[in-house]
Amino acid sequence: MEFKDNFLIWDKLTGKQQERLTKTVTYRTVKKGTIVHNGSMTCLGLLLVESGQFRAYIYSDEGREVTIYRLFDMDICMFSASCVMQNIQFDITIEAEKDSAVWIIPPNVLKELMEESAPMANFMNQIMAGRLSEVMWLMEQIMWKSFDKRLAGFLLEECRVEESSVLKITHEKIANHLGTAREVVTRMLRYFQSEGMIRLTRGTVEIIDEKKLEKLD
Amino acid sequence: MEFKDNFLIWDKLTGKQQERLTKTVTYRTVKKGTIVHNGSMTCLGLLLVESGQFRAYIYSDEGREVTIYRLFDMDICMFSASCVMQNIQFDITIEAEKDSAVWIIPPNVLKELMEESAPMANFMNQIMAGRLSEVMWLMEQIMWKSFDKRLAGFLLEECRVEESSVLKITHEKIANHLGTAREVVTRMLRYFQSEGMIRLTRGTVEIIDEKKLEKLD
Repeated sequence: MEFKDNFLIWDKLTGKQQERLTKTVTYRTVKKGTIVHNGSMTCLGLLLVESGQFRAYIYSDEGREVTIYRLFDMDICMFSASCVMQNIQFDITIEAEKDSAVWIIPPNVLKELMEESAPMANFMNQIMAGRLSEVMWLMEQIMWKSFDKRLAGFLLEECRVEESSVLKITHEKIANHLGTAREVVTRMLRYFQSEGMIRLTRGTVEIIDEKKLEKLD
Repeated sequence: MEFKDNFLIWDKLTGKQQERLTKTVTYRTVKKGTIVHNGSMTCLGLLLVESGQFRAYIYSDEGREVTIYRLFDMDICMFSASCVMQNIQFDITIEAEKDSAVWIIPPNVLKELMEESAPMANFMNQIMAGRLSEVMWLMEQIMWKSFDKRLAGFLLEECRVEESSVLKITHEKIANHLGTAREVVTRMLRYFQSEGMIRLTRGTVEIIDEKKLEKLD
């Protein structure tokens, strides 16, 4: 697969714009654990994920983290190009959760395309609206949903992403996704276990009663 | 003041586009307390605030509210035109906090302008990025900041908005801004009073030691 087959608005660009992209887009593989963007890093450009998985998160001065959204195949990350996006006034960190491969549109090319192409500008608009919707969803979860429901929802989502009912994940990592302390996660997981919904072993969480978890979520 | 003097990218539009706006933009006054948009209402269009004040908030099934952002003079609200914005997947309510006056760009005109004008599309992009930044800021507040700091910050902000150190606001309203229960607000306000930072009377909160409140925030 080439860049143009994955870039949804390719056909709405002019021949010249397509040519400029073909000449300037780079392809890069990224090892699991690599941080490709954070608030203080230089401006990488627009990322288009070919394969792999990323998470975007924020963290507090005390080192607490919360996952804001994730990126899968075909997803686009615009915040790694925040230098060319006006009014983006927050720091976000993007980390590869799996070995991944991405295409990168350089910041200056992105800027030019957005300035001259309404389809491109509207496409960025749609992506941003999607991210904003994810953040609003998360806000509602945090504001109104009790932690047992959020944890149940997270475990079920992880099973879907990993296509497995056995999750290799530490309590610490779950806490960093959900923006809470490890102890809180451990306590709730033990409760889930006592209720027969999951089984805990060192470094894994196995879902054994999905229906019951779903009822909670 | 006319619409065109307040619409920042007026000069970047073509003569035809300016003409279309002049013909279709409407002007409307709105009484304090009016809800101009919510998730289930028809699509009003893009709002440009001439004067007054609005708040945008979300609420839970249980009727709890939290203020997401506010609109003042010259501010633009795009979510009241969410029918023409792709990927906006959340409900938000916009309520006039004071008697206000707005210009309204009808949804279909907004859609056409965005489709044909890169400056217009990028302008919408900037506004959305600004809103996203506000939501991210709020998220960080909710995740990492203790309630006393959030309440102190809110009271100081209200003093700036109202240009007064005596706020006519109920504990219930403060709770609805901050997404918590009235009892929690009352308890913390009483603590602030006991520390000499504020004075409470029926229906008002008077700030008497701004510096001490600022230290908390």
